[in-house]
Amino acid sequence: MLITPGADMRYFLGRSVASHERLTCLVVPADGAPHLLVPALERLGWAGSPVEALGLPITTWADGQDPYTELAELLPSDARVLSVDYHMPAVHALGARGAVPGSELTLAGETIAELRMRKGAAEIAALKSVGEAIDRVHARIGEWLRPGRTEHEVAADITAAIVAEGHERADFVIVGSGPNGASPHHEASDRPIRAGEPVVIDIGGPAPDGYFSDCTRTYLTGGADPDPEVREVYEVVRAAQAAGVAAAVAGATAESVDMASRTIIADAGYGDYFITRTGHGIGLEVHEHPYLVAGNTQVLEPGMAFSVEPGIYLPGRFGVRIEDIVVVTDDGPLLCNNAPTDLIVVG
Amino acid sequence: MLITPGADMRYFLGRSVASHERLTCLVVPADGAPHLLVPALERLGWAGSPVEALGLPITTWADGQDPYTELAELLPSDARVLSVDYHMPAVHALGARGAVPGSELTLAGETIAELRMRKGAAEIAALKSVGEAIDRVHARIGEWLRPGRTEHEVAADITAAIVAEGHERADFVIVGSGPNGASPHHEASDRPIRAGEPVVIDIGGPAPDGYFSDCTRTYLTGGADPDPEVREVYEVVRAAQAAGVAAAVAGATAESVDMASRTIIADAGYGDYFITRTGHGIGLEVHEHPYLVAGNTQVLEPGMAFSVEPGIYLPGRFGVRIEDIVVVTDDGPLLCNNAPTDLIVVG
Repeated sequence: MLITPGADMRYFLGRSVASHERLTCLVVPADGAPHLLVPALERLGWAGSPVEALGLPITTWADGQDPYTELAELLPSDARVLSVDYHMPAVHALGARGAVPGSELTLAGETIAELRMRKGAAEIAALKSVGEAIDRVHARIGEWLRPGRTEHEVAADITAAIVAEGHERADFVIVGSGPNGASPHHEASDRPIRAGEPVVIDIGGPAPDGYFSDCTRTYLTGGADPDPEVREVYEVVRAAQAAGVAAAVAGATAESVDMASRTIIADAGYGDYFITRTGHGIGLEVHEHPYLVAGNTQVLEPGMAFSVEPGIYLPGRFGVRIEDIVVVTDDGPLLCNNAPTDLIVVG
Repeated sequence: MLITPGADMRYFLGRSVASHERLTCLVVPADGAPHLLVPALERLGWAGSPVEALGLPITTWADGQDPYTELAELLPSDARVLSVDYHMPAVHALGARGAVPGSELTLAGETIAELRMRKGAAEIAALKSVGEAIDRVHARIGEWLRPGRTEHEVAADITAAIVAEGHERADFVIVGSGPNGASPHHEASDRPIRAGEPVVIDIGGPAPDGYFSDCTRTYLTGGADPDPEVREVYEVVRAAQAAGVAAAVAGATAESVDMASRTIIADAGYGDYFITRTGHGIGLEVHEHPYLVAGNTQVLEPGMAFSVEPGIYLPGRFGVRIEDIVVVTDDGPLLCNNAPTDLIVVG
């Protein structure tokens, strides 16, 4: 198994590194001890890291050497299946394959996901803590969101608050006002927010420990009457989100949570406008297994953590989404976000 | 050729997107018209983008569908060689391979690099402009760098200034004081900077147009006598860097620039302490082709842009690095950075 920098490396080693084109790779043979290959110029950066406490041998390669040849020398002589992490850049995956004659590439991600999607107590505590941090940002939205300001202006204030409230950085700051809210992955624009508009605010980032927050609320700006359908749509989404959370119990399937939310939206006549899956796993990545989507028969177990975020997206008009992070426990769904889900009017 | 979000996509389409696990892919058949595959929920985000001006057809896939099956349907029926960009995550590269029976993966990056490493006039102007922006940050280092402050504190001020001076964001902020300067990719730490220490400051990021700055200066803090070798080492690096810049002429090889810098450092007796290549190409990525490294016989042509950044790294003591971005032109090397290279004493 070959793992390059990213969430998988952090999961196994307690740290990762920013990485450009130089190869850093954790080598985990099917039998035998793991090994870390790093660029020589970065060797000092691993001093004092958890890797030393693990007793992992660290091999270096120097600029001008072929890192894949060095990598191949760390593999068992009979290694032919190179199982790589989901995010390994193709240049490294194909470089490794080329250095091991007769080898084939497979995805280690499937195996790693089995570990990562079952969170331990410390991980759940981390998700709760960073969830509280993003809740504090949502509690302050009224400070920044008002008609006449642009989405970018509001997003800049939120970005600063995400850091101020305890994140390492803001990873995404979606401010989707009016028709922009109908594009689920809209980020922010120079559009001035108007009076009487729903505004989708979907924000999050990693805490210094690497665990992510991700929470959406849809606000309504004051000063004018909104589209007459806004409140009805909002209550449908709110009911769908609550149903999804309630369905997030051990023994249920991932797709059953999706179906719990989707049924309510479909029954209200908005099925064609719920154009996303209901949620995604979360942890050291903001999107990871399990995905709450039709066809995913993964059985939920205590420790699995994911978003529940149904929405209704009306093209050219507006969107509504409500999202919380939920952890499956023996005692039922545990919410990592606890910002109110009432429709809050601001500005 | 299959290209997922990143610098290659931006190079070809004029924009890219932040991407998690959902597949977005530009398909460029060997013959015929290119095509863009995007997640349905992100389709609206491509409205008004340069992609529409290009007349590129956009196909969507919805959550719950297999994106690789959709991708395979966009390929010519006889496509068997899937040439993927350097940074394509393995999950997508292997997903595509699995959807096209009998296919094999190769790297499109080699071909794309042939295009990207020859910058046009607009790209050179972009590199000069962002180079001026990072020069303005270096001109202000004396405001923040002084004994008693930690590397992190200085780095936070620099990070804000990188944005204030016109970057989209800070991509890297290395503040390597004293012995930390001997680790080329050290970032910043809680170490208090002391009097009489060399401090390596290597900073950069992308302008809003996507082109990167990257400039290093080594400063000396006042208030105490430095290690007696500091000034000598500094002048060796300064001469090596100037020699590398002077060697960056059309018709020379990439490795000859490396050798020009390396010879001066080796002749001064510090060859074992110059533990990196001399430089890397730069453009829409901070590291790209061509790399200035022994063994790279790439002939330099007008429009090629790269860093020249020799250094001397004395473990446990200190490091010195000086770095400018240089563009090869018909009239000789063009410097994108023009901050003074004298040893500046601050604090």
